Amino acid sequence: MRRAIFPGTFDPFTIGHYSVVKRALTFMDEVVIGIGINENKRTYFPIEKRVEMIQDLYKDEPRVIIKPYSSLTIDFATSVDAKFIVRGIRTVKDFEYEETIADINRQLAGIETILLFTEPELTSVSSTIVRELLQYNKDISCFIPKGMKI
Amino acid sequence: MRRAIFPGTFDPFTIGHYSVVKRALTFMDEVVIGIGINENKRTYFPIEKRVEMIQDLYKDEPRVIIKPYSSLTIDFATSVDAKFIVRGIRTVKDFEYEETIADINRQLAGIETILLFTEPELTSVSSTIVRELLQYNKDISCFIPKGMKI
Amino acid sequence: MRRAIFPGTFDPFTIGHYSVVKRALTFMDEVVIGIGINENKRTYFPIEKRVEMIQDLYKDEPRVIIKPYSSLTIDFATSVDAKFIVRGIRTVKDFEYEETIADINRQLAGIETILLFTEPELTSVSSTIVRELLQYNKDISCFIPKGMKI
Amino acid sequence: MRRAIFPGTFDPFTIGHYSVVKRALTFMDEVVIGIGINENKRTYFPIEKRVEMIQDLYKDEPRVIIKPYSSLTIDFATSVDAKFIVRGIRTVKDFEYEETIADINRQLAGIETILLFTEPELTSVSSTIVRELLQYNKDISCFIPKGMKI
Amino acid sequence: MRRAIFPGTFDPFTIGHYSVVKRALTFMDEVVIGIGINENKRTYFPIEKRVEMIQDLYKDEPRVIIKPYSSLTIDFATSVDAKFIVRGIRTVKDFEYEETIADINRQLAGIETILLFTEPELTSVSSTIVRELLQYNKDISCFIPKGMKI
Amino acid sequence: MRRAIFPGTFDPFTIGHYSVVKRALTFMDEVVIGIGINENKRTYFPIEKRVEMIQDLYKDEPRVIIKPYSSLTIDFATSVDAKFIVRGIRTVKDFEYEETIADINRQLAGIETILLFTEPELTSVSSTIVRELLQYNKDISCFIPKGMKI
Repeated sequence: MRRAIFPGTFDPFTIGHYSVVKRALTFMDEVVIGIGINENKRTYFPIEKRVEMIQDLYKDEPRVIIKPYSSLTIDFATSVDAKFIVRGIRTVKDFEYEETIADINRQLAGIETILLFTEPELTSVSSTIVRELLQYNKDISCFIPKGMKI
Repeated sequence: MRRAIFPGTFDPFTIGHYSVVKRALTFMDEVVIGIGINENKRTYFPIEKRVEMIQDLYKDEPRVIIKPYSSLTIDFATSVDAKFIVRGIRTVKDFEYEETIADINRQLAGIETILLFTEPELTSVSSTIVRELLQYNKDISCFIPKGMKI
Repeated sequence: MRRAIFPGTFDPFTIGHYSVVKRALTFMDEVVIGIGINENKRTYFPIEKRVEMIQDLYKDEPRVIIKPYSSLTIDFATSVDAKFIVRGIRTVKDFEYEETIADINRQLAGIETILLFTEPELTSVSSTIVRELLQYNKDISCFIPKGMKI
Repeated sequence: MRRAIFPGTFDPFTIGHYSVVKRALTFMDEVVIGIGINENKRTYFPIEKRVEMIQDLYKDEPRVIIKPYSSLTIDFATSVDAKFIVRGIRTVKDFEYEETIADINRQLAGIETILLFTEPELTSVSSTIVRELLQYNKDISCFIPKGMKI
Repeated sequence: MRRAIFPGTFDPFTIGHYSVVKRALTFMDEVVIGIGINENKRTYFPIEKRVEMIQDLYKDEPRVIIKPYSSLTIDFATSVDAKFIVRGIRTVKDFEYEETIADINRQLAGIETILLFTEPELTSVSSTIVRELLQYNKDISCFIPKGMKI
Repeated sequence: MRRAIFPGTFDPFTIGHYSVVKRALTFMDEVVIGIGINENKRTYFPIEKRVEMIQDLYKDEPRVIIKPYSSLTIDFATSVDAKFIVRGIRTVKDFEYEETIADINRQLAGIETILLFTEPELTSVSSTIVRELLQYNKDISCFIPKGMKI
């Protein structure tokens, strides 16, 4: 059983995140979407809403498990018996950020980080952009997975 | 059966390459090391020698297959029935180079590229450095896999 | 009539910004300097002061129009009938940041982003640096346009 | 009259180049496509063929002029009375490369470089990729402008 | 007498910082560790504790001087009669950040910034990571200098 | 005695190189300019000419020593009893290139690499640009040190 976690804040979950999960499932048996709870960071969607939206999206996909977590990411991975972290990278900035975290996670817990390139047409999609559009009452349906209720 | 190719010139195969294969085997069933033959590019080790060195290294590992190839990388992947390409990345330069190739490979053949970060202590190891040291008759044993005969 | 907006916080307007406007006027008929009002972000100079300083600077240049705005940048562009956004870039970080925004703006509103390289000698000039020097009562006259009253 | 040159080797001209020209024409009156002749660099298509392909493509667009050149780029710009160079950028590597050249061109000849971001879906298109696909007899029609005869 | 300052927040001082000081001492006569006091930025360790930890660490090294400071960095350098700032760089992000600051410091005060590369195995060590591990009650002893009391 | 080498091809020596030497002398006792002889790389100026130009430039500066070399850089450093390599960096590309080399040099020979930022106004100066201008018979006097005879 190969199981990876896909950790993030997912505020909200976008088509970029959706693509990472879909592609990760081609080489992982299960993907655990770990929704980070960070009490010091104000989010647009409360944690309950984020969990609900993503759970609903994957209700017919038994290989995707959704779990909120507030521990260190490596402790979360260990708690769900996952040996891998999967991440999508879009930019040089992402690359350098992920590299540092991945080194530490490998060193402290032997957990391997596997990277997928964001598809070009999704490179500019981010939760930040979606939230900004929401604040101005713009239509964001093209940035979130079809069928996800917001 | 999940099979990935690990393509490269491997002139010569280094501990950096060795680490990528070892880690890829934790989530792939088989890794096909594809040794590129490029008639326009002069190599330090002839193709026969490169094949031999790597075959010898993995003679007891049935999940690693060694094959020279001279076609397009995606055609090579298809010919060995692999759906994935695995690559190690060390630097921003690597990242941008791999991203362009990966986009094309996904678009043309539906082949997914999976990236692993090079471990920090291997970041400066490269075939180029090894060849340069060899030209000056330096000891390169710490840069190639233990037991590989050069 | 080719009209571009040049959006920013301009807290304060620097010789770097001044250079972008001057050079944009060589290929645009009009440049609208859009001064962003962001109620969640504390600025050093209040919006009224920023508008006043920049208006005074361009009082004899009819091709430069100054307007505060609090909407999405693309809505601001549309409201002043501008088809272009002009931006100066200094660093790789700027480049990646602007690229994401530009993709979204092109996709959502068909607005094109045009980039100019910051001149080398202005690369380290930024509003952040100016504000930091002001906080320590340093002379900042070499970083702001000649004649701008602060 | 605002005239820009768009210099390159165009070996061959791709949909990426085509997009830059199209977008440059929204703020330039004329674009001169300067096809570099470099006797030290072997090209896939001879200069006559490159000129012919591009001329044919723009035969109904009087605002696009095609000219081969073998001088310094700034001298070519001056010779066609252009004050601007237009360039598309895709990557950090492109950004740094163009920045150095642009600084020199501004310093030596007062010529301004204007940058456009490559659209995300074209980021991985390059003449290099097209040539590589051609060498393996692959279909490259999706990478070159519709109607361009190769 | 060649004296450099090594400025930072050091919240806390890590083995990465320790390595920079050790290596700087091979070409500087004295290194002044300047511990920044920033009243607008909440730190994990109060300034008194940071000073104490670092002073204790270097109590037998007369060539290292520890001083808190709240002025501009160049004013601090001048006040301790230092002509150099020494900095370690790990990533492209660090590089660009330091470059801008270094340009300004050279221009305003004639102070030269000298860079050392972080050793590969220390690249992922940062005060941020240490603080995060501390918040989860993890062992951080491998990230701080031996003998430093936390 | 603190001695650094400053290795390069110097084809030709530019004001960028000149600045690095001048600044290195503020914290090094001696700088040995190591002019690389690479028989596989065709240079614009033959090695004898490059040595002569640089020797003449520093004929009144006893702290600068000029030496051609064809060995590995670390062996050259050791042969002149230098513990340091000094390098100027201009771009992210330079940064990544130098980092790899520096890691290897530290690991193999304990030689430390010290980096200086290129001044902003010299960032676009390079031997490559100078050679290209020379090929077109352009005036390059503003890119080489005053008094250097070419």
